[in-house]
Amino acid sequence: MMIPDKLKEIMDKDGVVAIATLGPDGPHMVNTWNSYLRISEDGRLFIPAGYMHRTEANIAFNPNVLITLGSSKVQGLHGAGAGFLIKGKAKFVTSGPDYEFMKKKFSWLRATLAITIETVTQTW
Amino acid sequence: MMIPDKLKEIMDKDGVVAIATLGPDGPHMVNTWNSYLRISEDGRLFIPAGYMHRTEANIAFNPNVLITLGSSKVQGLHGAGAGFLIKGKAKFVTSGPDYEFMKKKFSWLRATLAITIETVTQTW
Repeated sequence: MMIPDKLKEIMDKDGVVAIATLGPDGPHMVNTWNSYLRISEDGRLFIPAGYMHRTEANIAFNPNVLITLGSSKVQGLHGAGAGFLIKGKAKFVTSGPDYEFMKKKFSWLRATLAITIETVTQTW
Repeated sequence: MMIPDKLKEIMDKDGVVAIATLGPDGPHMVNTWNSYLRISEDGRLFIPAGYMHRTEANIAFNPNVLITLGSSKVQGLHGAGAGFLIKGKAKFVTSGPDYEFMKKKFSWLRATLAITIETVTQTW
């Protein structure tokens, strides 16, 4: 999956990312910072997971995730302010290269949340 | 529902709000700006809806919504950066005082998304 330059621009700005999963008890949301996202060489989205226990449990039940992020500081579809919706399938990775890659950058993580991106939509 | 001062502080900062609903086709997310949120006199959360057609359809199916927002510019539970998870029941309001209240502030809205808050949790 090609990551649009506009999305990379947003990842460089201050902002809050929302990650939604669906578990047996219904939807759940957790957050991280735009600046914590990384793109792997093969185009997956990596997020450092410190807690995210409920997200981990939900993903074991249903791997689909929805992620939104945006920034008022990036030009969007209707002037100032741009944002994206990312759909993908997520895995919690606690060892191996995908874990080590993120552990080097975020020493506090307990896992890499690795997302195989299905669609990337600029929503505004 | 009492709105914590910390949440009001976040609402005054630049940032992206995520709103998750659950429809017949699964979870859906839409976004707005922190600065677009308003609290009604009786403690409900009002959001101006310009598009949000999928959110409207989902709410007719299942009124439960999850909302997250945050800011790196507000002191949180672990230093700089604070965020909240709000759970509630939502309604699309297209006439009457709840609609007029928001229409005065956001002339472009087609509806007021009115949320009766059930829980407000500071998550970080």
